Amino acid sequence: MKPVHVIGAGMTKFGVLEEGILELVQSASLQALDSSGSRGESFDHIFVATQNPDEFTGVGHLSTLTADRLGLVPAGATRVETGPSSGSSAFEAGYAMIASGMADLVLVVGVEKMSEVERGTASKILAKMMSNENETKYGATPTALAAMIARRYMHEYGLTRDELSLIPVKAHRNGAKNPLAHFQKEITVDKVSNGRVVADPLTLFDCCPTSDGAAALVLASEDKTKQIGLADEYVKVLGVGHATDFHAVQHRLSMTSMNATVVAAQRAFKMAKLTPKHVDVCELHDAFSILELIDMEDVGLVERGQAIAAVKDGVTAVDGDLPINTTGGLKARGHPTGGTGVAQIYDIYTQLMGIAPSALQVDTPQIGLTHNIGGFGNNMVVALFGRN
Amino acid sequence: MKPVHVIGAGMTKFGVLEEGILELVQSASLQALDSSGSRGESFDHIFVATQNPDEFTGVGHLSTLTADRLGLVPAGATRVETGPSSGSSAFEAGYAMIASGMADLVLVVGVEKMSEVERGTASKILAKMMSNENETKYGATPTALAAMIARRYMHEYGLTRDELSLIPVKAHRNGAKNPLAHFQKEITVDKVSNGRVVADPLTLFDCCPTSDGAAALVLASEDKTKQIGLADEYVKVLGVGHATDFHAVQHRLSMTSMNATVVAAQRAFKMAKLTPKHVDVCELHDAFSILELIDMEDVGLVERGQAIAAVKDGVTAVDGDLPINTTGGLKARGHPTGGTGVAQIYDIYTQLMGIAPSALQVDTPQIGLTHNIGGFGNNMVVALFGRN
Repeated sequence: MKPVHVIGAGMTKFGVLEEGILELVQSASLQALDSSGSRGESFDHIFVATQNPDEFTGVGHLSTLTADRLGLVPAGATRVETGPSSGSSAFEAGYAMIASGMADLVLVVGVEKMSEVERGTASKILAKMMSNENETKYGATPTALAAMIARRYMHEYGLTRDELSLIPVKAHRNGAKNPLAHFQKEITVDKVSNGRVVADPLTLFDCCPTSDGAAALVLASEDKTKQIGLADEYVKVLGVGHATDFHAVQHRLSMTSMNATVVAAQRAFKMAKLTPKHVDVCELHDAFSILELIDMEDVGLVERGQAIAAVKDGVTAVDGDLPINTTGGLKARGHPTGGTGVAQIYDIYTQLMGIAPSALQVDTPQIGLTHNIGGFGNNMVVALFGRN
Repeated sequence: MKPVHVIGAGMTKFGVLEEGILELVQSASLQALDSSGSRGESFDHIFVATQNPDEFTGVGHLSTLTADRLGLVPAGATRVETGPSSGSSAFEAGYAMIASGMADLVLVVGVEKMSEVERGTASKILAKMMSNENETKYGATPTALAAMIARRYMHEYGLTRDELSLIPVKAHRNGAKNPLAHFQKEITVDKVSNGRVVADPLTLFDCCPTSDGAAALVLASEDKTKQIGLADEYVKVLGVGHATDFHAVQHRLSMTSMNATVVAAQRAFKMAKLTPKHVDVCELHDAFSILELIDMEDVGLVERGQAIAAVKDGVTAVDGDLPINTTGGLKARGHPTGGTGVAQIYDIYTQLMGIAPSALQVDTPQIGLTHNIGGFGNNMVVALFGRN
């Protein structure tokens, strides 16, 4: 397998934005091109991650549109979709193409433009990724499933409502220092715990928003990295793991562990020849507060049931031993579904390069991890990155 | 780059079918698994090609659903979409994953279920892949663009209406012998030339149908091929090329050549260290009759303007020197958009394995080529395969 480097990254602000989907793609991509010194280079391939652009915006065929808009024709171009893990899956596909020797220079861009449709429409579009047979037709929503999981986790491990609120509080504390975050305002435990109930025990502040936004990465082979003239200004890709679980939550063995994360993480660590102990900074998929705790345990960062203790001890804060979601996570940075996985890698890239916003920069991390959920917990990608 | 083999393939009948999208996926996939002796094996990854399943069927997240339905959880699973070339792009992504050493056993399945929506709705869904800015908002449709191209080709090369009709006539002649084809009835030059005009000079019989259907491939590394116990019952992948062109037809340099095909073919031939002269059997993307002629020239099989002479001489018939679309092509085999690219490879696999329907089997072909168009001529994949 040939080594693959992340040589540049770009990201738009996340939030409810005026720009159209193609403008978002262009803005993040040109930043990534510029940050890698690859503007004007001949790209072999473009991977575009986006979940439902046709339905959210009426614009389809985004892979070709991206090649055209960026002046990268005749590069090959492919759209990748695995629900909200589309961004990481596109990264994985781009990684494979360089690792195989088929390509030397690849652009990966993730985007979603969710605010053009009416409020109720977005959740109807997103609901198609759930099991209609077993969930949607009985009225289940992603939040309802997350609520059941939270209740079960509370039952098994004694987690309290106020403890769970520490996750969104941390997310907003970090997001407040991230100029690209959807929400840049701190919140309190009281506000989360006593917020409007969406699905008991989860309140509005346990749930990530729907956002507009895009992020982009430039991936390169060793040869291309040298040819562009980069000495050590890049991040190494160390491992990628991808796994599925049964589509419907009711068919899974556990409600408080997501096996696709467990398997994807094992695969990524095996490929990287690392263990969870090596990880210095993480982006975990916290679409709902409870997921951050479960993700920590499934990735193997803490023992089962011990996640909240680590949070309470400040271990996962920016200045802790294992900072998690330093940029605000899905909760505060925002969640344009197809864009999220790429944004997570953007965030880890900036951490490992030492160019994160100064208040969020972790002290010289060596190894970073991203974890991205597709579907409701059934299509996960875990990736590991190393400081050069 | 590690060698990649096609060790099995499966395909449903194409047409207006009763089965739902997931049943089609399952049927083609299980055939592919059985034909490769890989039922019960642990798959590393699944790639699902489908253009607009959410809109055509209301079912999204098809990659995970496929893993679940086939009992292949926790395999990684990814949906790939590049419009009607989705199938070939998914094949390319699966190829890259094995060629890199990341995976040893990959299922590629392509599907579209287009008949559940009302007649007018399908073309509205598909229109999103065109340029709204430059084409759709002025009333252009894929057929209208194909008609302009046909008119220009007639002007440049003297092609007549009756000559053009030879393409659908050949497609239906072959389709009539293919039990999986959407249309299994021969037609005449008179019927095509004097059919209902859809966009002058094209008639109904110049245009492929919208179809339901699925096709699937099992790809394996050398090690996995041996481990499964296959001696020489597989086809070798020799080359893959992928290229884009400007999104709107009006932005391209030529109306009678599609540069994305030219570049994709050059890339595939370069990788395979072959030239067009080596090709023994082809599947070309004939969504409209005129495209088969342009494809032949762009791939480099004949000189510019010479395609129709080859057709008239019988060169492209099943018993000719260069059989093209032996199974009926998109015109007669049918065109479930996400399924087509995989079906083309299914067809070339059966030709190289010597297991095509006997009336359609070419005499021991050594090299086969597939050519798949995405968008209106702007996202092309060309692949080359070799008899073992």
